[in-house]
Amino acid sequence: MAVNLNIPAQDTILPVDGIEIGVTEAGVRKANRRDLTVFRFAEGTSVAGVFTRNRFCAAPVLVCQDHLGKGTAIRAMVINTGNANAGTGESGLAAARATCDALAGLLGVASDQILPFSTGVILEPLPVDRIVAGLPAAIKALGPNNWFDAAHGIMTTDTLPKIVSRKVSIGGKTVTLTGISKGAGMIRPNMATMLGFLGTDAGIDQSLLTQVARDVADVSFNRITVDGDTSTNDSFIIAATGKSGVMVTSAEEPQYAELRDALKAVATELAQLIVRDAEGATKFMTIKVEGAGTQDEALKVAYAVAHSPLVKTAFYASDPNLGRILAAIGYAGIDDLDVSGVNLWLDDVHVAVNGGRNPDYQEADGQRVMKQAEILVRIGLGRGNVTETVYTCDFSHEYVTINADYRS
Amino acid sequence: MAVNLNIPAQDTILPVDGIEIGVTEAGVRKANRRDLTVFRFAEGTSVAGVFTRNRFCAAPVLVCQDHLGKGTAIRAMVINTGNANAGTGESGLAAARATCDALAGLLGVASDQILPFSTGVILEPLPVDRIVAGLPAAIKALGPNNWFDAAHGIMTTDTLPKIVSRKVSIGGKTVTLTGISKGAGMIRPNMATMLGFLGTDAGIDQSLLTQVARDVADVSFNRITVDGDTSTNDSFIIAATGKSGVMVTSAEEPQYAELRDALKAVATELAQLIVRDAEGATKFMTIKVEGAGTQDEALKVAYAVAHSPLVKTAFYASDPNLGRILAAIGYAGIDDLDVSGVNLWLDDVHVAVNGGRNPDYQEADGQRVMKQAEILVRIGLGRGNVTETVYTCDFSHEYVTINADYRS
Repeated sequence: MAVNLNIPAQDTILPVDGIEIGVTEAGVRKANRRDLTVFRFAEGTSVAGVFTRNRFCAAPVLVCQDHLGKGTAIRAMVINTGNANAGTGESGLAAARATCDALAGLLGVASDQILPFSTGVILEPLPVDRIVAGLPAAIKALGPNNWFDAAHGIMTTDTLPKIVSRKVSIGGKTVTLTGISKGAGMIRPNMATMLGFLGTDAGIDQSLLTQVARDVADVSFNRITVDGDTSTNDSFIIAATGKSGVMVTSAEEPQYAELRDALKAVATELAQLIVRDAEGATKFMTIKVEGAGTQDEALKVAYAVAHSPLVKTAFYASDPNLGRILAAIGYAGIDDLDVSGVNLWLDDVHVAVNGGRNPDYQEADGQRVMKQAEILVRIGLGRGNVTETVYTCDFSHEYVTINADYRS
Repeated sequence: MAVNLNIPAQDTILPVDGIEIGVTEAGVRKANRRDLTVFRFAEGTSVAGVFTRNRFCAAPVLVCQDHLGKGTAIRAMVINTGNANAGTGESGLAAARATCDALAGLLGVASDQILPFSTGVILEPLPVDRIVAGLPAAIKALGPNNWFDAAHGIMTTDTLPKIVSRKVSIGGKTVTLTGISKGAGMIRPNMATMLGFLGTDAGIDQSLLTQVARDVADVSFNRITVDGDTSTNDSFIIAATGKSGVMVTSAEEPQYAELRDALKAVATELAQLIVRDAEGATKFMTIKVEGAGTQDEALKVAYAVAHSPLVKTAFYASDPNLGRILAAIGYAGIDDLDVSGVNLWLDDVHVAVNGGRNPDYQEADGQRVMKQAEILVRIGLGRGNVTETVYTCDFSHEYVTINADYRS
């Protein structure tokens, strides 16, 4: 029951010159399921990534960080679903490296030019033999028009594929950006999300791309939450092939900001798609905190509201039990918060004024907004000029059902 | 569906010499419901309290802090359910003070000798007229044997009353401790819980009691969580009448530690009763973190596990999907955590060793423990000698149902 999640028509998805994709069924956990995806990048492609801060980060995340840290040109990615290869210790690391070795051999590149990704159940051994056995079929399928297959190939509890594609003009030249994402639960990215891959035929220096990837993640995947659970496998990758002829070599060039902003727009849309397809979601909520003194306190308040099970269940019920939002603001961790400066709006309805109920507030107005599928919760703190926005969803019976049954 | 919540037989509840209680129906929110409770303390009673740190703390909490801060002898408490008097601004404060004024007049004491408490819906005006109108009936009912009625009188979404009563020997003399608590949702006390009242006929200096109340709250009500939502109204009160003849006047006396430990034991049991009756709970989980370097990091890990919706739903399903616990440990916020030092046990079953799956772990063993109603989750961090314990429950369909319907 995804919330206003639009899947674009397959023929509107633009290939990215320099990127080929192949998807196959490797039977990692279940049969008859596209669970193995390979990306191949043309020579000259810059690749940068942002990864989970979870200390129990998965083996493939460690290998990605190792390979990106070496500075060798990344030429391919391999992604399996069905198993997260997390909480698997030394043998998990060996399994991730063995996957890279096998793909490197088949593609004729070095093992440290491969980035591996896994997503699925934690604390179970990766069936590396099945993955390696599936690689030839994935390679055989490599082609520029398989973004849609890849969006399907990386799904786990997602109900719909998540894909965004657009053309933008950078420095007067046309550039393509196409990206996919996945994730529906264990979503509270910290530096990146479950899995997000964004390709462009713009070119950009490797060193600049690393900073751009962080900036992009910070306004997109780092601003969504479903259940507050930061995954062990969060990874967000940008690959810039340069095949469009656009080449950004300095942060001072106007094209730098143009490209960064275009990437931010696509990544934000991809991140929101994850919330729209969140486990059991029936509502899409934008939590906007204004008038904060610092970014940190704006985010504390936004996440306290976004994570409160009581707030989330009230939205599920379309019940304007809005004192629960005030309670969450109050425990968010701003020790010197003066509640008499706090205001609360639901869309255009002014619910609380100066820390108390707005005398003009009518419950019928709150009720009207609560029944919508998309709701803006706007909070004024009255402490400064910082604004931050976080995207989240409600908390339903279906979330409990999905997560009580996920492995069975 | 409370978890092993035993209600003691009414005739085993010991009155506390110097404390009288009266309960009545005031129709605060609903008719035919005992929703107004008055406690009267004998002259010479020491009273100390610990209150929520929620910045949107309720008007009665502010009034309690004001009255306790003045140092005048507290002679009575008044508690209503059905309305929290929180998020109500200046008019809420006036309503709480008006309640104190009315009770003070009826009892012949000063208004600042009264402590008011409210619990229920946030952001709605307190119907102070109905409360004041109910006071004479509550006073008429005052008597030493009404602790059971009070345990009922303070219930909201609680399914069962919570009461603990025992006799202990302090300095060779017999002392009585009887306490009640309430709360089932919006439970993650920060300095105290929803409502907890503990009476004893031991005596103790007012200044010492304030410190004892903090120490007691820190091992009891401050170690439970249901949903991570810190309430606006959390209040924990200890009243020591001195009528037993035991009088503690210095922290150096052996009786000080005896009394403090007896209070801790009763308060911990009262706090656990709240978790056992948590909204929708089917399991009672003890999260014990060992080998932490500091209390702060032990608590971070314990609460990350206790609050994770994914961990809580897995326990609800009796599904040993235990990688979710590792993920929560990993995102708990210990930036330099070396996961190779982490161990995990479910009761006696050693699940993870040195950060990975224990080779000897059999899923059938995990399954066996997960089916129990009471489960010990023991986590070894391998960083030091600090141990902390937190009590929580699982997350069920019923929790969503209760909180999606609470106001209707």
